[in-house]
Amino acid sequence: MEEARLARGTRDLLPEQASRRNAVIAVLREVFARHGFEPLETPALERIETLTGKYGDESQKLIFRILERGEGGQQGKTDLALRYDLTVPLARVVAMNPALRMPFKRWQIAPVWRADRPAKGRFREFWQCDCDVVGSTDMLADAECLAVAADALRAIGFPTFAIRLNDRRLLRAVARAAGVPADREGALLVAVDKLDKIGRDGVDAELAEKGLVTAGTSRLWSVLSIRGAPAEVLDGLGRELGGTEETDVALRDLTELIALATALGVPADTLRVDPTLARGLDYYTGPVFEVWVEEPQVGSLAGGGRYDQLIGVFGKQPIPAVGIALGLERIVTVLEELGRLPPGTDRPLVLVAVYDPAHRANAAAAARAMRDAGIRTDLYAGNAKLKAQYKHADSLGVRFVAIVGPDEAAARTVTLKDLATGVQVTVPLADAIRRVQGDAP
Amino acid sequence: MEEARLARGTRDLLPEQASRRNAVIAVLREVFARHGFEPLETPALERIETLTGKYGDESQKLIFRILERGEGGQQGKTDLALRYDLTVPLARVVAMNPALRMPFKRWQIAPVWRADRPAKGRFREFWQCDCDVVGSTDMLADAECLAVAADALRAIGFPTFAIRLNDRRLLRAVARAAGVPADREGALLVAVDKLDKIGRDGVDAELAEKGLVTAGTSRLWSVLSIRGAPAEVLDGLGRELGGTEETDVALRDLTELIALATALGVPADTLRVDPTLARGLDYYTGPVFEVWVEEPQVGSLAGGGRYDQLIGVFGKQPIPAVGIALGLERIVTVLEELGRLPPGTDRPLVLVAVYDPAHRANAAAAARAMRDAGIRTDLYAGNAKLKAQYKHADSLGVRFVAIVGPDEAAARTVTLKDLATGVQVTVPLADAIRRVQGDAP
Repeated sequence: MEEARLARGTRDLLPEQASRRNAVIAVLREVFARHGFEPLETPALERIETLTGKYGDESQKLIFRILERGEGGQQGKTDLALRYDLTVPLARVVAMNPALRMPFKRWQIAPVWRADRPAKGRFREFWQCDCDVVGSTDMLADAECLAVAADALRAIGFPTFAIRLNDRRLLRAVARAAGVPADREGALLVAVDKLDKIGRDGVDAELAEKGLVTAGTSRLWSVLSIRGAPAEVLDGLGRELGGTEETDVALRDLTELIALATALGVPADTLRVDPTLARGLDYYTGPVFEVWVEEPQVGSLAGGGRYDQLIGVFGKQPIPAVGIALGLERIVTVLEELGRLPPGTDRPLVLVAVYDPAHRANAAAAARAMRDAGIRTDLYAGNAKLKAQYKHADSLGVRFVAIVGPDEAAARTVTLKDLATGVQVTVPLADAIRRVQGDAP
Repeated sequence: MEEARLARGTRDLLPEQASRRNAVIAVLREVFARHGFEPLETPALERIETLTGKYGDESQKLIFRILERGEGGQQGKTDLALRYDLTVPLARVVAMNPALRMPFKRWQIAPVWRADRPAKGRFREFWQCDCDVVGSTDMLADAECLAVAADALRAIGFPTFAIRLNDRRLLRAVARAAGVPADREGALLVAVDKLDKIGRDGVDAELAEKGLVTAGTSRLWSVLSIRGAPAEVLDGLGRELGGTEETDVALRDLTELIALATALGVPADTLRVDPTLARGLDYYTGPVFEVWVEEPQVGSLAGGGRYDQLIGVFGKQPIPAVGIALGLERIVTVLEELGRLPPGTDRPLVLVAVYDPAHRANAAAAARAMRDAGIRTDLYAGNAKLKAQYKHADSLGVRFVAIVGPDEAAARTVTLKDLATGVQVTVPLADAIRRVQGDAP
């Protein structure tokens, strides 16, 4: 006997879990389409070259790589990889399809793979739900991303959340102000990005370890400590970092983004400007954002930002883009803890029991008629006593059990038991169907 | 500039393709649920051990293997693999979850990966749509698989198809009759399975190459050549192969399967008994089946069979099971060629144009109101002349364009143009919403 085991950091979803999660996905798809995003699908497998150099050194190590088939594989060579996010594949698609109409708004809900250390609500195979707007530098595009994420979260049962905003251009200015050389900015951002997890002392320790402590480090913390309502934080950042074209544009962009997101229906009180928000990935160039709930604490539910240079890496010219990704596992985990995960909707309504093997064809014909009438109908495909079949019906959670024994077959009737009320009737099949459909008492 | 390229044998689905395919998947899910199957999800990543020795030697080579992270990977070691089908993962799930109620009926629609030579309608990443019944030896379970597949194919637009049936036990008896030793049966089945593709001469050549030609080879062909209505073929097979317990049970099972499938609504004239049908995979033990359309010729649309020993490989005891897999790519390819692929249903209905950048917030507010009313609404997130935005609306395929310029903003109205009729009106926002919803002229 072989051991039946899952790969580390992966899991199965049994019917009730899968069904409930499918219900969440259905809501997301409806909201995404309502916001004018269209579906796109890309393969799970990408060429390694496509994913190399896009995410930063720490992330790069987490990519699952696939052995070549044939001779190269025997030498340990790899040529393919599992996608790490849905953003780089989107950039590849846009570069490969110059005829795409711009701005191009697409959603994709699909798994991605990262060889991260598994933790609560964090898997090595997890689903991202992405909305991106490609081909526009307008802050309306960024605002559309915030609006669709906010609407999606409300639709699936989060009345409140906080959207943290920042801008990579401000972070670069912070790095300069702190005296960190341009080629070490990435390392600084990686450290700052961990502030929520490891605190200021932890970040300071990491900066020291990486040799990033300078005379300007106190300046770093004075910028990162600015708090208050968005306008106040933007004012404070202006005083600390303003005066260069890049920072002034960044501050103006954030101001516009907040105004446009509000016009699109994002509640103003959910929007925060947070100078510490960095986001780990290399490819962001402008505004970055994350969506958080206060309780339970599982990390951000969604995150994204503007990446105006990524598509140009693949294509003939840079094409601006902005996007947001909702993390399905975290959303489901939080909904579950809050008791707000919607029930699944595809459980069968009726179990047609088999009176005895000799009457299976009658049971089959009754099941067929119910299915043809659009009723979700299970048929007991085994050889068990009726009592065991009733128990099966209970554990399935069906509402009705239908039986066609020899008497019923002779009289062309069905015995239908309503498990909710205990009422049992023997009626013609068509009447039983109407009862199940709720059209008859 | 890097080259933007897909991995070999994979592809992207742009919005129109993705949307139309999603419509097919939605129909399949509805039919699967109507037949009492429940959703299950398993990870794409499985431990290599889980997939090893289940499919046969030729198939084993086609499994994509994943390099270990860290030191092992540097030595070319692999520990994980991409799932090759949805059946072996199901067997693992059943073995790991002894509390599952039996019979357990599940569907799963998900991609699988095979490093096969790509061809028309054949990809290295492709989607299977599986329905399986676990925990029953009753032919009613096998009949349920045929019924759900037949109903699914009818629902997505195939009025006619042929279901070919055979039984692995009969194939084993054929092998014995042909004088092929038990340990070479697998090789014989692999050759016979190619009959459709390479013809009798091709199979004979392969048998010769593999040293499988014996004094009984003419006997092989006399069995494989039996044709006619199901009852006739079963009679012929009985005369040639009957008289052992195994073949008699197999013949009785096929007879029952046909009767029960017919009772479940599978049209009798679609059912054929075909002594040449082998199915490549090692794990089948009883009835096997494939669904074909005559035109266009793209291979089978669905296939499956009974695998009573597979779950026992993982678990404490053998648990019988039977299933069928529909191939999504082939189904979509055939529907496309027949002009029957349903249109996508999630295209936006309205584009809110931006009159000029100064009025973006008004456009945003109008888009918000339409979305709140449930209307799929796109918002032009760029800086383009109205003419260009109308062109964009055309290529998007939206029905309406809405504009909120300075006059409209002052009067709290929207100018709404119906691209289908050319009619343009300037009305209050609420009226525009009613017009788009079709509730007002």
